[in-house]
Amino acid sequence: MSTHFTNRQIAGLEKRARTALVNSLSGFKSLNLIGTLNTSGQTNLAIFNSVMHIGADPALIGFISRPDSVDRHTLENIKETGFYTVNHVHAEMFEQAHQTSARYAREQSEFDAVGLTAEYKNDFQAPFVQESRIQIGLTLREIIPVKINNTLLVVGEITDLYFPDEIWDADQGIFDFEKAGTIAGSSLDGYHATQLIRRLKYAKP
Amino acid sequence: MSTHFTNRQIAGLEKRARTALVNSLSGFKSLNLIGTLNTSGQTNLAIFNSVMHIGADPALIGFISRPDSVDRHTLENIKETGFYTVNHVHAEMFEQAHQTSARYAREQSEFDAVGLTAEYKNDFQAPFVQESRIQIGLTLREIIPVKINNTLLVVGEITDLYFPDEIWDADQGIFDFEKAGTIAGSSLDGYHATQLIRRLKYAKP
Repeated sequence: MSTHFTNRQIAGLEKRARTALVNSLSGFKSLNLIGTLNTSGQTNLAIFNSVMHIGADPALIGFISRPDSVDRHTLENIKETGFYTVNHVHAEMFEQAHQTSARYAREQSEFDAVGLTAEYKNDFQAPFVQESRIQIGLTLREIIPVKINNTLLVVGEITDLYFPDEIWDADQGIFDFEKAGTIAGSSLDGYHATQLIRRLKYAKP
Repeated sequence: MSTHFTNRQIAGLEKRARTALVNSLSGFKSLNLIGTLNTSGQTNLAIFNSVMHIGADPALIGFISRPDSVDRHTLENIKETGFYTVNHVHAEMFEQAHQTSARYAREQSEFDAVGLTAEYKNDFQAPFVQESRIQIGLTLREIIPVKINNTLLVVGEITDLYFPDEIWDADQGIFDFEKAGTIAGSSLDGYHATQLIRRLKYAKP
């Protein structure tokens, strides 16, 4: 048997079920921790499942931010300093990563609260997550409003990239995510390990 | 040993390796086929790895489109009709899905070229992919320019949703992606099966 929901039927679902359903409709999601620092030196760390590729040249990454949500300290800090880090979540740290989504007070660093380590490298003005294997330093380039629901697409340019040599194939340019332990997310609460099925060649008609 | 790349070093990589590297930096990606129809009745189908959750109420999904790339027929058709479908890629159809990324001529339907089936339901003005288990009908709401690299964030509202009952947990609202066979993507060429590690409860400080 199969189900057909119209938009009105989706809107009529119990709120928690509707949120879980709609959050799962796009498919699998990236899982990253965004690290920031405000001008008083206070660190913030928050998990995001909306980090996406925007372009390769210049190398751009985006994420969706809600102006008035739990991630507001992240957005405030990025606006204040213009810098932030994106750090891949792997299988040995996903519980700590998830815990950063709790609504901690501004003066509480999520690094301390969840037990992850802020790492400063080469004078970059935001903390990396020492436990992450793929660490990206970004410079803010554009904050783009999505009018229909007041969210924001935050776009940054990759300034610095750190990773252990053994997870990268220099010839092909690709990471071995299974070796890195990078995991995938679903809806708001699912954490998934992966297994490579296959890499496919550039398609021609 | 570990590697540190600056933005200048990334820009200096051989082009194919740079593209593969930067495309893998955001982490795992959703894999969806977008189906469209132009006003002459010509169908188009293209794989996208940038479909993302934008909001639950109203239920919104976005994707990144390049104005002048292989996906241009998709964008043209969406602008023409205002309607499109998003269809999850599962493990038994990923090769056909990948093949839609070849540069077929406008008059060639990718449905026919790759061997997937256009399905029309309830007068919706775009074709669903019959082989997909999660099929979403969307109405265009907003096309938002990303100035820095001339890409576009295309945002649509979910109008219709179809799925087999056995992959959805109605109490919790979540899909069982492993049962659905939904897969995850990496960089431009990687196709990955998944295994649920765990679902985590809403986090509190």
